[in-house]
Amino acid sequence: MRANRIRQLWAAGQPVLNGWLSFACPFTAEVMAAQGYDSLTIDMQHGMVDFMTSLGMMQAMSASGVVPMARVAWLDPVEIMRILDAGAYGIICPMIETREDAERLVSYVRYPPTGVRSFGPSRAVFSAGADYGERADEEVLCFAMIETRKGFDNMEEIASTPGLDGLYIGPADLALALTGRTYRTGFDRTEPQLIDAIVKIREAAHAAGIRAALHCGSASYAAQATGWKFDLLTVSNDVRLLAAAARTSVEEFRKTAKI
Amino acid sequence: MRANRIRQLWAAGQPVLNGWLSFACPFTAEVMAAQGYDSLTIDMQHGMVDFMTSLGMMQAMSASGVVPMARVAWLDPVEIMRILDAGAYGIICPMIETREDAERLVSYVRYPPTGVRSFGPSRAVFSAGADYGERADEEVLCFAMIETRKGFDNMEEIASTPGLDGLYIGPADLALALTGRTYRTGFDRTEPQLIDAIVKIREAAHAAGIRAALHCGSASYAAQATGWKFDLLTVSNDVRLLAAAARTSVEEFRKTAKI
Amino acid sequence: MRANRIRQLWAAGQPVLNGWLSFACPFTAEVMAAQGYDSLTIDMQHGMVDFMTSLGMMQAMSASGVVPMARVAWLDPVEIMRILDAGAYGIICPMIETREDAERLVSYVRYPPTGVRSFGPSRAVFSAGADYGERADEEVLCFAMIETRKGFDNMEEIASTPGLDGLYIGPADLALALTGRTYRTGFDRTEPQLIDAIVKIREAAHAAGIRAALHCGSASYAAQATGWKFDLLTVSNDVRLLAAAARTSVEEFRKTAKI
Amino acid sequence: MRANRIRQLWAAGQPVLNGWLSFACPFTAEVMAAQGYDSLTIDMQHGMVDFMTSLGMMQAMSASGVVPMARVAWLDPVEIMRILDAGAYGIICPMIETREDAERLVSYVRYPPTGVRSFGPSRAVFSAGADYGERADEEVLCFAMIETRKGFDNMEEIASTPGLDGLYIGPADLALALTGRTYRTGFDRTEPQLIDAIVKIREAAHAAGIRAALHCGSASYAAQATGWKFDLLTVSNDVRLLAAAARTSVEEFRKTAKI
Amino acid sequence: MRANRIRQLWAAGQPVLNGWLSFACPFTAEVMAAQGYDSLTIDMQHGMVDFMTSLGMMQAMSASGVVPMARVAWLDPVEIMRILDAGAYGIICPMIETREDAERLVSYVRYPPTGVRSFGPSRAVFSAGADYGERADEEVLCFAMIETRKGFDNMEEIASTPGLDGLYIGPADLALALTGRTYRTGFDRTEPQLIDAIVKIREAAHAAGIRAALHCGSASYAAQATGWKFDLLTVSNDVRLLAAAARTSVEEFRKTAKI
Amino acid sequence: MRANRIRQLWAAGQPVLNGWLSFACPFTAEVMAAQGYDSLTIDMQHGMVDFMTSLGMMQAMSASGVVPMARVAWLDPVEIMRILDAGAYGIICPMIETREDAERLVSYVRYPPTGVRSFGPSRAVFSAGADYGERADEEVLCFAMIETRKGFDNMEEIASTPGLDGLYIGPADLALALTGRTYRTGFDRTEPQLIDAIVKIREAAHAAGIRAALHCGSASYAAQATGWKFDLLTVSNDVRLLAAAARTSVEEFRKTAKI
Ligand SMILES: [Mg+2]
Ligand SMILES: [Mg+2]
Ligand SMILES: [Mg+2]
Ligand SMILES: [Mg+2]
Ligand SMILES: [Mg+2]
Ligand SMILES: [Mg+2]
Repeated sequence: MRANRIRQLWAAGQPVLNGWLSFACPFTAEVMAAQGYDSLTIDMQHGMVDFMTSLGMMQAMSASGVVPMARVAWLDPVEIMRILDAGAYGIICPMIETREDAERLVSYVRYPPTGVRSFGPSRAVFSAGADYGERADEEVLCFAMIETRKGFDNMEEIASTPGLDGLYIGPADLALALTGRTYRTGFDRTEPQLIDAIVKIREAAHAAGIRAALHCGSASYAAQATGWKFDLLTVSNDVRLLAAAARTSVEEFRKTAKI
Repeated sequence: MRANRIRQLWAAGQPVLNGWLSFACPFTAEVMAAQGYDSLTIDMQHGMVDFMTSLGMMQAMSASGVVPMARVAWLDPVEIMRILDAGAYGIICPMIETREDAERLVSYVRYPPTGVRSFGPSRAVFSAGADYGERADEEVLCFAMIETRKGFDNMEEIASTPGLDGLYIGPADLALALTGRTYRTGFDRTEPQLIDAIVKIREAAHAAGIRAALHCGSASYAAQATGWKFDLLTVSNDVRLLAAAARTSVEEFRKTAKI
Repeated sequence: MRANRIRQLWAAGQPVLNGWLSFACPFTAEVMAAQGYDSLTIDMQHGMVDFMTSLGMMQAMSASGVVPMARVAWLDPVEIMRILDAGAYGIICPMIETREDAERLVSYVRYPPTGVRSFGPSRAVFSAGADYGERADEEVLCFAMIETRKGFDNMEEIASTPGLDGLYIGPADLALALTGRTYRTGFDRTEPQLIDAIVKIREAAHAAGIRAALHCGSASYAAQATGWKFDLLTVSNDVRLLAAAARTSVEEFRKTAKI
Repeated sequence: MRANRIRQLWAAGQPVLNGWLSFACPFTAEVMAAQGYDSLTIDMQHGMVDFMTSLGMMQAMSASGVVPMARVAWLDPVEIMRILDAGAYGIICPMIETREDAERLVSYVRYPPTGVRSFGPSRAVFSAGADYGERADEEVLCFAMIETRKGFDNMEEIASTPGLDGLYIGPADLALALTGRTYRTGFDRTEPQLIDAIVKIREAAHAAGIRAALHCGSASYAAQATGWKFDLLTVSNDVRLLAAAARTSVEEFRKTAKI
Repeated sequence: MRANRIRQLWAAGQPVLNGWLSFACPFTAEVMAAQGYDSLTIDMQHGMVDFMTSLGMMQAMSASGVVPMARVAWLDPVEIMRILDAGAYGIICPMIETREDAERLVSYVRYPPTGVRSFGPSRAVFSAGADYGERADEEVLCFAMIETRKGFDNMEEIASTPGLDGLYIGPADLALALTGRTYRTGFDRTEPQLIDAIVKIREAAHAAGIRAALHCGSASYAAQATGWKFDLLTVSNDVRLLAAAARTSVEEFRKTAKI
Repeated sequence: MRANRIRQLWAAGQPVLNGWLSFACPFTAEVMAAQGYDSLTIDMQHGMVDFMTSLGMMQAMSASGVVPMARVAWLDPVEIMRILDAGAYGIICPMIETREDAERLVSYVRYPPTGVRSFGPSRAVFSAGADYGERADEEVLCFAMIETRKGFDNMEEIASTPGLDGLYIGPADLALALTGRTYRTGFDRTEPQLIDAIVKIREAAHAAGIRAALHCGSASYAAQATGWKFDLLTVSNDVRLLAAAARTSVEEFRKTAKI
């Protein structure tokens, strides 16, 4: 089985740069996979994608060596097991709120006797390797998202779940959850209350001996978060990157065109 | 029938800003349609799209008011007529080399007795208006691309073809054609020989009373070309915009991450 | 954010005419959106559609101004939140049986602190408006279907759920549930027992200050139901409309052809 | 190889009722196939379909016994041979204008030594029968559309082309071609000039010993045309049937709703 | 409603040969449907398919007369009811562990008053017959998979669930579950402990008066299992058949090519 | 640009084993790419695929290192240039009959000044390498199929076309063309007349200093043809491999089942 390069980077003391895919387009994924990310995560929760398009996207990324992951839509064994069968090397699961949630998550990602994952890695034996069944439990990553009040309150118990690889912070939902609608929605929080919460989650992860990941809206914020000792930083997504680049281009033309 | 806003902008003396779509993804098109372009052209020649995905992309752009056009793959009546039936408001046809080519192009775009377009505007009667059959010949735009040596030599004859609305310059092919492999491929030519060729084509168009359009790789070059009196400027495409934005983001992270 | 025209019609004292989409075809949706319905609901439960095709259908309807809604397959947070992210302006949820069901339904449709909807309106910020995050909770509609014995028995408790906008009656399942297989399956019930049940549900909705909606098989039955003070009437679906129209055409030909 | 029921009906002296498919939706095709048509033709010229969706539509129609045909987009060997390989039992080719056109058409539809069809009936050996290679030339139907001035003038020469099975009249294009824009576009012509032209084409077909087919917009007109001795009548298409049925339903509701 | 041929074969004392589909390709399904299987099951759990592709696959199989079934991904009412609405004649549900699981499974497959299946057989009324609503409960098959330790321990209680038609053994998961990772994963178990388990499940099924089915990797193992009195044998899947056939062909060429 | 392994194998004196893809399924392609073929050709002529599915198939094969080629449907610049833009490393063009055909073929495959290929390698710059524009003309392969009487008669002139890389024999069409319907259709010809023809074409290729390729139905025939000094052997396709493997499995079960 092809090794998970995220684990290799971590072993080498490197933070991981993760991209985010929300367009249902294998060619978009292939283009993104050529830009230097360590890993790319397909957003099956808020992205405009589904299983079949995700499969095509993972196929299109396969040659690049970028690690393919999926942010699934929910703590749902079906979706988690299927995207793993399709070759995902990591699962980021939203809305984990309790130790029991986290244990169920781990159980869906690992084969018996560790977990309850059903055996049938249809594509993974081709894309990851013929020995996938033996090696998958060691290579596949499993992140629990902390982004609700309840999840925040239970972060230590969640972090100590055997088999969990990391906590992943969703700042948009976390801000809504911790502060109601006090602040605008979005990533790259600068409010002290939220920075404090983010750092606390990072500390809980590290205290439990697992990794901490942060969803960011910009490279500069993500770079700053490497200073906070995060192990994996997600920077923007394809929709925002394209929209911003196109808008900038349009505005530059509008300003400078000679009419 | 909904009026063609490109014609309205021209009537108001405004240059048109055109975007370019190469991803086979309706949501990409919808996102691009929200960024301020006057028109968006689906690249059915070099884009990784086909008819069905182009249809979905035009449907997804429909609410935006952006003018949908298609750069077809060839001087092929089937593709031209079908994408018009699907609601395209303009055709950009590559590799037009002779007056006869240009006449055939016009004939495919116009209904009898002007042309030979077969009647059956299946989607257009819904997306453009129930009176599409009566009004289409006035609204739909028809551009001939000048991008070969032969086309360059015949530009005046081509420009004077009745019913043709404009000449469209493809600088990458034109550079290959006029100079062999003297220079790198690509847009935004700065070589005097090529700028001269580009300006000559613009002049031929205007001399014939039709419009001139230029395919550009950047907003700054396009803005400069408005100074050369071009009527429509294409700036970059979705693939290049996304790739460049992602690469910039990755590089910024790599430079500034605290490892 | 574009206002929800259903709310505007209700504010003006008008009943809403809703169509129903079961073909997985954006062009079908676009054609239906041009026929005069106030809203069109994609049937993700019994329709032969999925998320990606529903997305394409909403994109294709977008220019029409018809309100796009979804009848989801189940009280499932994943499907509900995803179709809202994709731009649906209303959710009709089948098989609501208890107050707790109804509360969960509302919670999936509303952002915190009202509900638990996760934040990430990927398409909605483009299709509905950039201020979607602030306005969605006011605009998006949320209907609970009453169509089981248990739901029927709990209708008052369900109707009084804070944040619920209406009760929606599914007569085919309701008839099966209340009467076993006493009667044929289907809509447009004329049995006194079922008319009585239907009117009771309408009354429970209005007593609780929310709206009442009825799924009908024909325009004449729906028109009659406006007399029963229903606020939203669904009339047939695309499959039945097409099948009936084709059959009628075939039969007319068979009867009158001169052989 | 499964026999072509159109030939059987003709042998029995029966006119054939043909439906028309313009939605890219296998389920639409399956629903249409259950309504009593003898044959259903996928409109690859003006329909919003492509090869892959046409394949799915033919698969979905396969169990019904309805004869699947295709109106191809052009006199193009690629499209004609591919849709035959995919299992079509008949080709209706638009815009045939000369004897040479007609000969090329026949040659694309028949295997050597009669024609030049390339051998590779990938799906047809499964859907039509293992002996497809031996029997196809006898079963597959080949219609030339007469719908231009030139085609009209050459109808006798066209009709006498060896191997051609019928002339198919496209009244919308024919009206444009023969009369310019004197009349509205559309089917079901009542102008004496056009009825005269239609009858002339029918006579030319029968004089040459081949069949005559007419594209109609309504069952009543088609029934009338059986009186003119047409052998195959197309009645409406799925888009028009659905649009008309939905509009009628909406209007009935609007008129009778009690507001 | 078309009768379920599996029930007819059983009534005639014949074992059923079932194929397995994991490619998301209607043409693959059509090709498989021509090879002599009694039934073909779409693997919605480990196969690389989804609902829309499964629909297309069932449409493509429809003409063959082969019984279409689905192995769903989970004990999930949504997926089970939708694939039944789409025309599946049988459900194989993985990971059934308790009597309560089995009762829920049956309830999702049967209409009230037997079960809770929601009424809306959109495609089934076309593909199976207009009287589907009345007949479906008698024709549709419902298998519970026994493949976990808990399911194994509860097999008698599960087998006696009213309305259940059979137990289906998944040897790969069962081996993992009963023996941890003692043995390799896979089908066609030869370990006495596992053969014993397999035979026990078969006996439990027959003791309860229902059918027993076994998933096999080869025809020879399946033939042997007919000697164990299994009523339905699944043999391999399309992915393995293709991969093995291609590899054999490649190896034969490599060995015998004259280089 | 990634080197073309076919050229490397030839340089090393090795014959190339080519597989053939006719299912429209990226996963099928991925599975085939793992079985040991040197190259895999997507059959865009007789295969049930189109451009978008071919793109997905090439993406799915990309990680394997197998050389992706396309047998296009016709001598059509659009299809040839598009599939090259999508990353194909070789073109096999059917029905080449004259030197002029062959010159046109080469011109579509090579950039100016050698040919007339339009510049826009949208995917190829990602899948093959950023220097694709400079290197493509050296790496991409171009085969002319000899499979008609006229092509056979002109084989020497065709073989000597500058820039052509090989002659490719299509035995099924060739047999039809040279012998009418004297023999069954199909590959693996054993008739002396046809073996003679096949060997003559091989000799013409080698005499002109280019390569010779043969389409075979079985590994044994292909191995035999390596003795005839063919440089590339195609063996079977995915459809036939799957059908044969499934049928063999079914027959083995039927023969050995204990009923
Ligand atoms: Mg979140
Ligand atoms: Mg160009
Ligand atoms: Mg219901
Ligand atoms: Mg016509
Ligand atoms: Mg299992
Ligand atoms: Mg051939």
